[in-house]
Amino acid sequence: MHHVTAMLETHPQATANEALARCIQRCFVCAMTCTSCADACLAEEQVHELVRCIRLNLDCADVCDVTGRVLTRQTSSEPRLAQGMLDACVPACRACAEECERHAPHHEHCRVCAEACRRCEQACEELRSSIGA
Amino acid sequence: MHHVTAMLETHPQATANEALARCIQRCFVCAMTCTSCADACLAEEQVHELVRCIRLNLDCADVCDVTGRVLTRQTSSEPRLAQGMLDACVPACRACAEECERHAPHHEHCRVCAEACRRCEQACEELRSSIGA
Amino acid sequence: MHHVTAMLETHPQATANEALARCIQRCFVCAMTCTSCADACLAEEQVHELVRCIRLNLDCADVCDVTGRVLTRQTSSEPRLAQGMLDACVPACRACAEECERHAPHHEHCRVCAEACRRCEQACEELRSSIGA
Amino acid sequence: MHHVTAMLETHPQATANEALARCIQRCFVCAMTCTSCADACLAEEQVHELVRCIRLNLDCADVCDVTGRVLTRQTSSEPRLAQGMLDACVPACRACAEECERHAPHHEHCRVCAEACRRCEQACEELRSSIGA
Repeated sequence: MHHVTAMLETHPQATANEALARCIQRCFVCAMTCTSCADACLAEEQVHELVRCIRLNLDCADVCDVTGRVLTRQTSSEPRLAQGMLDACVPACRACAEECERHAPHHEHCRVCAEACRRCEQACEELRSSIGA
Repeated sequence: MHHVTAMLETHPQATANEALARCIQRCFVCAMTCTSCADACLAEEQVHELVRCIRLNLDCADVCDVTGRVLTRQTSSEPRLAQGMLDACVPACRACAEECERHAPHHEHCRVCAEACRRCEQACEELRSSIGA
Repeated sequence: MHHVTAMLETHPQATANEALARCIQRCFVCAMTCTSCADACLAEEQVHELVRCIRLNLDCADVCDVTGRVLTRQTSSEPRLAQGMLDACVPACRACAEECERHAPHHEHCRVCAEACRRCEQACEELRSSIGA
Repeated sequence: MHHVTAMLETHPQATANEALARCIQRCFVCAMTCTSCADACLAEEQVHELVRCIRLNLDCADVCDVTGRVLTRQTSSEPRLAQGMLDACVPACRACAEECERHAPHHEHCRVCAEACRRCEQACEELRSSIGA
């Protein structure tokens, strides 16, 4: 997380805020993890049982990546946009986590991914309540 | 819009729905237009007056691109995710359109971009009400 | 293609160039089509036969999207970057087209997608030779 | 880097390779850092002197993000695509690092960003030579 904090600390308009830095970091980790989990599911023999998981992974990766980008931008900040993305990111993480948790007993990549989704979901909810959304 | 419709028509689980196809198309057009407007603003001599416009262009481009991607995916569709992105996309387009409209009298790229944002905002609202969100 | 041309024509540093506008347009169309084809393949009963197709669709969608973004930016243009992305985009489109063509007789979405990939590949090659890359 | 390694280790077709994991990690860190540096530059009073820096930051962020995504995908891996993106990523990182280094004495965010770009450039070159590209 140190590079996220380092960038927020050197930004002329941002204030390095722990809830913000944690949320940005977890969004990008979740985007990476979901991209990888979609690909790992695709390589499993039982890929037909993992169709819904792949689809939710792809959406969650995209939504988390853009949430991370929007939160990273602190110039002329528009709270409506950040809140809108946090509101979209929470259900994306939750749906993906729920599906990955179903497959976690059989696929370790789903177990790791479900954890990343839950950590991102929690960080988004904490940031959302800290900014009064 | 014909390639969006062509892909929805050949999808095993999707039904080619005019409001959906129009929304996907306008999201991707808006993403392209905002990426270009951010870059054109950056090339203007009065770039310091366009800082907020550039920032909102960058956010709107990212949010519209991901909204278009999420809506394009029709397999094991999860209405919560689509609705979450539509809810995030409307204020992103509106904030960007409002700012671009302020600069439209002096910068033609802002005038063209504001129109793309308003058309995307409208298509997102129409799709949102058609799916009962 | 009119919105791509409209934005290039209003850009303070760009010159609206037909090969450039066509390439940007085809990159974004190909990105949309590949995103949709990956999702349609995922919904097919024989998804296990389409694993390689889905994977190449996902890569091609991402590479085309970023090639389109880099080419759209005309401020302080850096030919090395545009050429690097054109050089990466051609094999991404070609690999995806070759795989989609194999499935085109059975899946109409693969036929439509292969065409979009071939048109994007060709536009990238034409732009690359027009800029002396 | 542990989540990148954890995902590669649980992937049915990947082999957790240190050069690969490092490159993926540095691509995503560089994408985040460049997104933040573009935004921080935009907030500086002397934004007109940072136009080229912002433009290169935006390109580098996009190119690194997609390079990270393509490298993360290990199913039915297509060496041409990975090599094409590594070849595009090296000059994107180098151009951005060179420009950020010029501003590093005055802007701490440019100093931090230049370091992330150089680290990503180096990891891409190492991975490229390890896969014989």
